Amino acid sequence: MTNPQGRRHPTIRQAAVVGTGVIGRSWIRVFARAGCRTRVYDPNPSQVEKALAWLEEDLSLDVADGLISAKEAAEQRARVTAHKDLVEALDGAGYLQESGPEEIDLKKAVFLQLDRVAGTQTVIGSSTSGLDMTEIAQGLPGARRCIVAHPVNPPHVIPVVEVLGGEHTDLEVIAKTCEFMSSVGQKPVFLNSYVSGFLLNRMQAALIREAIDLVERGVADVKAVDTVICEGLGLRWALMGPFGVANTNADGGIREYFTRYREAYIEDMNDLGPTPSLDQAMIERLAQGTDAMFNGTSRSEIRRWRDRVLQKVCAVKQSDPSPQVIFARELRQF
Amino acid sequence: MTNPQGRRHPTIRQAAVVGTGVIGRSWIRVFARAGCRTRVYDPNPSQVEKALAWLEEDLSLDVADGLISAKEAAEQRARVTAHKDLVEALDGAGYLQESGPEEIDLKKAVFLQLDRVAGTQTVIGSSTSGLDMTEIAQGLPGARRCIVAHPVNPPHVIPVVEVLGGEHTDLEVIAKTCEFMSSVGQKPVFLNSYVSGFLLNRMQAALIREAIDLVERGVADVKAVDTVICEGLGLRWALMGPFGVANTNADGGIREYFTRYREAYIEDMNDLGPTPSLDQAMIERLAQGTDAMFNGTSRSEIRRWRDRVLQKVCAVKQSDPSPQVIFARELRQF
Repeated sequence: MTNPQGRRHPTIRQAAVVGTGVIGRSWIRVFARAGCRTRVYDPNPSQVEKALAWLEEDLSLDVADGLISAKEAAEQRARVTAHKDLVEALDGAGYLQESGPEEIDLKKAVFLQLDRVAGTQTVIGSSTSGLDMTEIAQGLPGARRCIVAHPVNPPHVIPVVEVLGGEHTDLEVIAKTCEFMSSVGQKPVFLNSYVSGFLLNRMQAALIREAIDLVERGVADVKAVDTVICEGLGLRWALMGPFGVANTNADGGIREYFTRYREAYIEDMNDLGPTPSLDQAMIERLAQGTDAMFNGTSRSEIRRWRDRVLQKVCAVKQSDPSPQVIFARELRQF
Repeated sequence: MTNPQGRRHPTIRQAAVVGTGVIGRSWIRVFARAGCRTRVYDPNPSQVEKALAWLEEDLSLDVADGLISAKEAAEQRARVTAHKDLVEALDGAGYLQESGPEEIDLKKAVFLQLDRVAGTQTVIGSSTSGLDMTEIAQGLPGARRCIVAHPVNPPHVIPVVEVLGGEHTDLEVIAKTCEFMSSVGQKPVFLNSYVSGFLLNRMQAALIREAIDLVERGVADVKAVDTVICEGLGLRWALMGPFGVANTNADGGIREYFTRYREAYIEDMNDLGPTPSLDQAMIERLAQGTDAMFNGTSRSEIRRWRDRVLQKVCAVKQSDPSPQVIFARELRQF
């Protein structure tokens, strides 16, 4: 099986990954898989070593699971180089993906340094899940080439990337970023404006808020709530978003669906739970339910299962694509 | 490929399907696939004809797509009989699935009739997505065997079933229903108490509320919001619910995750949008975005794609099951 996201014509040939935690190390796989020369840097050298060890292991596991060939794994590996010097790491990079800590002052300091070191043509993308690029890049000479490219963990198995600029970001840089992300097999979505949590974490927070409330009120246990998602709503959502689902759930499409169910939806929406306290007692209660559900299985085993099965699921979708065309390639319009 | 939900040892050998709209007709496939003799009734005979025509076509498509063999399709078809007389349809049924209109007075009238006609040992399950069994079965001699078994559309490709009794429902009937649903390949989840919208429609409403708000505020378009789900969050949720995801997204598990991100979550949760008006202008705006996304593809084509790919996705999960054991079989404990 060839990797579902694998493409061999990246619109940018050399990428840099700065920050190699859980998100950064997964980006290495995205770029290397697509054929980019991928240079890796972390201010903490031991973090780079850990990321490279993970890369070796993860590639081996993919080979063992038949997801990629040994040759393919070796080729991906060969495209990755680690660098102790930031200047060297960024030299020649057309695209740079920053995945550092989510703290605004730290992020600003990192971007100040990256903007100083990176060549003027380098696009500087951040994996930030919630900071505002207007603020991060405020006052930087290269603010025009700074952009948010927020993935879902882990990006090498989940394609979506939220793309949005700050107020100084060039439209051309946005288009270039979307094109590059599409060319490496990701699915960029464009946000018109900054909003706290972007699209992804807001919708996730909405679902989690209600999930926690249902457990808190004793309507059902952690396992029941999770099962409704992973054996129910989540399966449908793996193929279509909420609007696509609404459009297929009534013979007359989304107009009929929301007209017919409007009152029921409004009633349910008005009845949704408030923001939970999430105090230590509540976290412990959720954790005990989750422990019972995971039943002693190690986190690394669950994660490996997740990554393996998600790659197979994406391969199914790739081999039998939706008759609708929703891909972000159309974003090229602007 | 054998069907992922296919099991041949149903704990109840004969089932009845009463009401054969979009949900009822899909239940026919669930029971027939599992090996149950399946008797079908609808007060409107033309509705039964339409359901049987759909069954023929859907089985043929599954054969054409290699999801089941022609022999398997013929066997499933042979287990299904249509009946013009309700007494005949219910004769010998161990389990009855009602999928009629969602209107409380109508539902009560239907249950009055079903309770009168069905043998005393027949469990009477309703596909209702929101009515309270305490009210539906109020005053019925057989209230003890009346229960909610709410599926996701379409149940023959999406396994989850929300199971909850009314205040008169026997615990034994709840256990029997969960066992039967498991034995036919569904994933029952048990609700301790009635709440409007159950688990599923509440969590769906929470996500949709925020999705609509994001479009209404102009943060992104319909397609972008849908893509964040179907190429992002939905993929992860097809494997794990929100608590499972939280538990795998931090090295220290869900305790670390919610402790570390507590403030960010509370901030995002407090900032979530209000219930939208969903007036005609808003519905039309969502519909135009959805039309653009579906790009002229017919609804039947999209539905067929959904059903085919979901069956393949479930087959992937079936062949590479989660190392955690979350299946509802454990519900037998009560």
